Amino acid sequence: MINWNIEENGFDEEKATGLGNKYLTGNGYMGIRGTLEEFTKEQFPAVNLSGIYDQVGNGWREPLNAPNGLFTRILVDGVEYALPEKECISHKMSLDYRHGIFHRQTSFQTVKGNVLLETERFASMDEKHLICLKVKITPFFDGSLEVVTGIDGDVWDINGPHYDIIEAATEEEVIRTLGITHENKDEVVVYESLTAAFAAEENVKVDDRKIVRNLKFQVKANGEYIFYKYISIYTCKDSENFKAEAKVLAVQSKTEGYDALLNRHCSKWEKLWKVSEVIIEGDDEAMEALNYSLYHLHCIAPRHSKSLSIAARGLSGQTYKGAVFWDTEMFMLDFFLFTEPEVAKTLLKYRIDTLAGAKKKAKSYGFDGAFYAWESQEGGYDACSDYNVTDVFTGRPMRTFFKDKQIHISAAVAYGIMRYVQFTGKDDLLREGGAETIIECAKFYYSLLVKRVNKDCYELWDVIGPDEYHERVDNNAYTNRMAKYTLDAALRMLEEYADTEDTANKELHEKLVDAAKHLYIPAPDEKTGVIEQFDGYEQLEDVTVAEVKGRLLHEKEYWGGAYGVASHTKVIKQADVVTMVNLFSGEYEKDTLYKNWSYYEPRTEHGSSLSACMYSMLACKCDMADKAYPFFIKSAKADLVDGGKQWAGLIYIGGTHPAASGGAYMTAVEGFGGIHIENGVLKAESKLPEGWNKLSFHIHYLGDLYQVTVTREEAKVEKL
Amino acid sequence: MINWNIEENGFDEEKATGLGNKYLTGNGYMGIRGTLEEFTKEQFPAVNLSGIYDQVGNGWREPLNAPNGLFTRILVDGVEYALPEKECISHKMSLDYRHGIFHRQTSFQTVKGNVLLETERFASMDEKHLICLKVKITPFFDGSLEVVTGIDGDVWDINGPHYDIIEAATEEEVIRTLGITHENKDEVVVYESLTAAFAAEENVKVDDRKIVRNLKFQVKANGEYIFYKYISIYTCKDSENFKAEAKVLAVQSKTEGYDALLNRHCSKWEKLWKVSEVIIEGDDEAMEALNYSLYHLHCIAPRHSKSLSIAARGLSGQTYKGAVFWDTEMFMLDFFLFTEPEVAKTLLKYRIDTLAGAKKKAKSYGFDGAFYAWESQEGGYDACSDYNVTDVFTGRPMRTFFKDKQIHISAAVAYGIMRYVQFTGKDDLLREGGAETIIECAKFYYSLLVKRVNKDCYELWDVIGPDEYHERVDNNAYTNRMAKYTLDAALRMLEEYADTEDTANKELHEKLVDAAKHLYIPAPDEKTGVIEQFDGYEQLEDVTVAEVKGRLLHEKEYWGGAYGVASHTKVIKQADVVTMVNLFSGEYEKDTLYKNWSYYEPRTEHGSSLSACMYSMLACKCDMADKAYPFFIKSAKADLVDGGKQWAGLIYIGGTHPAASGGAYMTAVEGFGGIHIENGVLKAESKLPEGWNKLSFHIHYLGDLYQVTVTREEAKVEKL
Repeated sequence: MINWNIEENGFDEEKATGLGNKYLTGNGYMGIRGTLEEFTKEQFPAVNLSGIYDQVGNGWREPLNAPNGLFTRILVDGVEYALPEKECISHKMSLDYRHGIFHRQTSFQTVKGNVLLETERFASMDEKHLICLKVKITPFFDGSLEVVTGIDGDVWDINGPHYDIIEAATEEEVIRTLGITHENKDEVVVYESLTAAFAAEENVKVDDRKIVRNLKFQVKANGEYIFYKYISIYTCKDSENFKAEAKVLAVQSKTEGYDALLNRHCSKWEKLWKVSEVIIEGDDEAMEALNYSLYHLHCIAPRHSKSLSIAARGLSGQTYKGAVFWDTEMFMLDFFLFTEPEVAKTLLKYRIDTLAGAKKKAKSYGFDGAFYAWESQEGGYDACSDYNVTDVFTGRPMRTFFKDKQIHISAAVAYGIMRYVQFTGKDDLLREGGAETIIECAKFYYSLLVKRVNKDCYELWDVIGPDEYHERVDNNAYTNRMAKYTLDAALRMLEEYADTEDTANKELHEKLVDAAKHLYIPAPDEKTGVIEQFDGYEQLEDVTVAEVKGRLLHEKEYWGGAYGVASHTKVIKQADVVTMVNLFSGEYEKDTLYKNWSYYEPRTEHGSSLSACMYSMLACKCDMADKAYPFFIKSAKADLVDGGKQWAGLIYIGGTHPAASGGAYMTAVEGFGGIHIENGVLKAESKLPEGWNKLSFHIHYLGDLYQVTVTREEAKVEKL
Repeated sequence: MINWNIEENGFDEEKATGLGNKYLTGNGYMGIRGTLEEFTKEQFPAVNLSGIYDQVGNGWREPLNAPNGLFTRILVDGVEYALPEKECISHKMSLDYRHGIFHRQTSFQTVKGNVLLETERFASMDEKHLICLKVKITPFFDGSLEVVTGIDGDVWDINGPHYDIIEAATEEEVIRTLGITHENKDEVVVYESLTAAFAAEENVKVDDRKIVRNLKFQVKANGEYIFYKYISIYTCKDSENFKAEAKVLAVQSKTEGYDALLNRHCSKWEKLWKVSEVIIEGDDEAMEALNYSLYHLHCIAPRHSKSLSIAARGLSGQTYKGAVFWDTEMFMLDFFLFTEPEVAKTLLKYRIDTLAGAKKKAKSYGFDGAFYAWESQEGGYDACSDYNVTDVFTGRPMRTFFKDKQIHISAAVAYGIMRYVQFTGKDDLLREGGAETIIECAKFYYSLLVKRVNKDCYELWDVIGPDEYHERVDNNAYTNRMAKYTLDAALRMLEEYADTEDTANKELHEKLVDAAKHLYIPAPDEKTGVIEQFDGYEQLEDVTVAEVKGRLLHEKEYWGGAYGVASHTKVIKQADVVTMVNLFSGEYEKDTLYKNWSYYEPRTEHGSSLSACMYSMLACKCDMADKAYPFFIKSAKADLVDGGKQWAGLIYIGGTHPAASGGAYMTAVEGFGGIHIENGVLKAESKLPEGWNKLSFHIHYLGDLYQVTVTREEAKVEKL
């Protein structure tokens, strides 16, 4: 049996921000950072909401954090005992990541004697709008205690404050705040009901952006004083009667009670694990890290919507503007597609429903079709700035080209949709706009194609591939191959889902056939077998990652851009050609896969959490499970280890890494388990690393659920 | 009568480097910086040689400075009296720029009494290898004097030392040094003969890299002690017997004597002025500045060669690596073409003779045809570095794209050749490789053409136009138009000078017809009449030059590159579209010329000495002589005013500005004088600025010399 708990002993203020991510709970509608109840915005507590954004002035547009209904502090003799301001005697925090339950236990020494504060909380997996919090206080003295608990509207923001107004009020037994946002006057309402298992004198106080109850009560040494809070959160996007619904939920939850709600919550989690748990016999560490990763994916799955996607940092805050990147389609999709295809559909439906935004973006650059947002917010609005990096030497914004040159994003959308079709065997998504979306993506690439007048092939110039350190390059192998994939897919769409008698369609079909035929795909070098990442890569300075790192003059300076330490060398940020040959491994000899892995790996900084899993999966395909393993562990532990990058200069960039989580899943299932489709049949293959005796998991394929069991000797795929 | 002398009173060590350029003398084979005889390398004296280069280590490859045969110091009582070490009582320096004669006159106070040192020198216009120096010493005391004079091989270099070895020797009555260069073991020999008009005890001393004569003699107060030095310079490039020839020249010159040599020298200058002098009645200041500019062009004209060009800083030192830029064809050529067509031919022959280098460069980038060097040295070697600018904030070299993206250089070569044909009416140059050169330039552009698959036109992407602050742009109007010019010229060459029956020629002709027809030339905007400098220029931030300048964090930081203060604004370094419409003014309405002038002028920093003349010429074409005038004066005085940029960070960039000189000439003759060709007939037009009563000059056209006389009322062109 593996341990489904992680825990942290002692309190270290420095680590609190990072632990906010590691101990995150969530239910797709919201993410609750693993911070303490007494925290104020300085410690980055957050109840992060999905799919709702706000912009203040010229700051980055970012998702909202709801007013914090968890806010709770205890007082003895009028003195607050709260971290980090007061030292504690002991502190322990834990997360049951099988059920998404957060615990904390802190002991303070007061003038009257010690007091133990314990809390337990969860974002209900059964009721997306609900947070339940249990607070238990054990004093070791006789006397009186005071608790301040309520809703703190003075929330942490990176580019806030987003609420122009926080209205606070008491309504019968519940308290509530209503936040009104700056940009669109969106409303976020938070209700809180409370039941205490002891008698207390209660006063409600409204203080600026905060509404709190003040509970005063007499205590006896070793007595346990428990109260429960039921916090409901709704936004104006949820329904017309969102305020009333929020109130009803807070009131009814109180009636239903904490234990019943916890039960329902846990059953939902068990239901999810029944399909999604991956069992690794012989390597508990790996199994724990992997399932911890899957926990995070579950926490952010938008099950409450039919059309919503996942931000690059999940629901762990406002980092990267809460925007959707190619991470979703290329790194997270498979997990949902294999274990919960309806969520996969929701993710893709988001892209289909933001087609208009993608078309608008293409047009704004003078192109046809759909150019998806590099950092997609609602409606497909591209939140990406033209100046995404700050020069550490001058403090000036640097012109970056992520938004305008990373054209491979549209192909990721087409790829995701086709992958859905491949694994579900259903054409619902295609009929609901997927076919049109793919065709529009192909039109986009078509309008980008250039041909040297004296050459026959078509090329894609001035792009950025997955490796962002080399910008404005020509013929990035990954990008060209993905564009070709899109053209091929669009041809199929035109043939199967469009009016083939229509003249415009016929013309387009003809054009795309021509484009698919002539688009230049960089091929393995005849001698070395290596595929050049882009035109001219071979001529760049060939130095080690360490050498490049040694050239840094400032630890936070950007490695890429026009003059970065990596820009004019072969050192790359992340898997690029390796991603390409991994996706299209069937088109290459195994020896070519190996040569590209071996060539690019020592030249890769792995400066992105998207890198390790690609190297890991490709290593599996090259029968190098030993080399795959450390990359797999790196992916699976992306959020489990401390010390992930929390800051880029003065900008907070901490958060969870769901793409790494999804990558770890893909590596386990498709890498070590060798899952693939052969002539329409789901197949597994044993590529287990040392120490793994058995790997077993479930997979949805063509509407059926399969049990996959991979041992060192064989790989079985059984329909259930 | 204008004053053909410029002079400087007093000595200021700070200004000595700048005056080295302003007081330059030269004869095309060599340039002698206007520095003092006693200077050592700390004060940047130089006898700069044309067409011979050397590279040491990874330093820039640059032209050679010859061992300095002018070196002379006087001593009284064993104490040296030399600037800048010793203070002087008075100092005066002057240049007769009608005859290229440099004078200095310095008075020192010695322990024995005052002494006056006067020198006069010239680089013979009649004998390219010869420098003559006259030294007159007038002591105001009785006693003894000492003179140290000889050849100082410890020369000033920017990226030296270039002589691995300096051999010094006495041969009968002459002394000599032989310098052997580092890279190619080239040899430079300097001989010196000396005659003194007084008796002296002479000793020759060799000291490290220096050989000097020590003359000791008795003097009387108010006596005049004169000696003459005849310095001959040859390199191994000049002939096989260069050492013997150099010796003979030094010896024979002594026999012939200073005055006779000076006479021959002055006659040569008068002969040059007879054709080239430009007379401006009513504005002496302008006439002086303009003829001073022409003086500089005469000083650097490679009359001694049949195939040699002019460096961007002439013969004033090693700045810009002594390399040939587009400056020659686009800014200096007209002066020589109009006044001394054989020099124009020599300049263009250099390009024809470096075609192999240009083809090699094109090939190295994967292109066809001829891609001329951005900074051309001998053989067409491109001395331009990929890292031409140092980041002032990090001290790191910045990747620049002058070498690989400034493709308009090849068109400048074609343009120059065709301009020669147009004004001489001769096809000698075309038959001697010019036609082939133009065809190869056209092949280069053809191989660069790209076509968007969904568009009909051909485009040129990823280039740098004349405005270097905006790099890697698409469809720079100037570049595209010049490429079209080249294609058209090549078609004419194919039709008239190639075997039209040859299949390859036929095929090429067909291709070039197609290319010339489809090449996209940015047109004036329908509403504003403004031609967009490149794709997307219109979207850039529209701020003033002052605003952009105000954003500098460091006075020496580069305005261009990826993140420069100008890079993402409309502020440009120099005339770009204005250069284009000036060259092709006949293709646009006058109103369009005016609109482009008015739009771009306030957005131009004029950070290059190539800018003012284009604005000036175009202003004339728009009948705005008043607006043209200050730009003309700026061009004409480029080397006359002090304070030109001498340093870029730690790199010396001072020197003369022959392109500005040529630009001033073009402005006078083609701008204010309205010189142009109409149906094969040379025409002038009066566009005189205020205060100019008459402008007169000579012009060679189709083998005849013309007298042009422009008054406020009329413009006469008379064949002589």
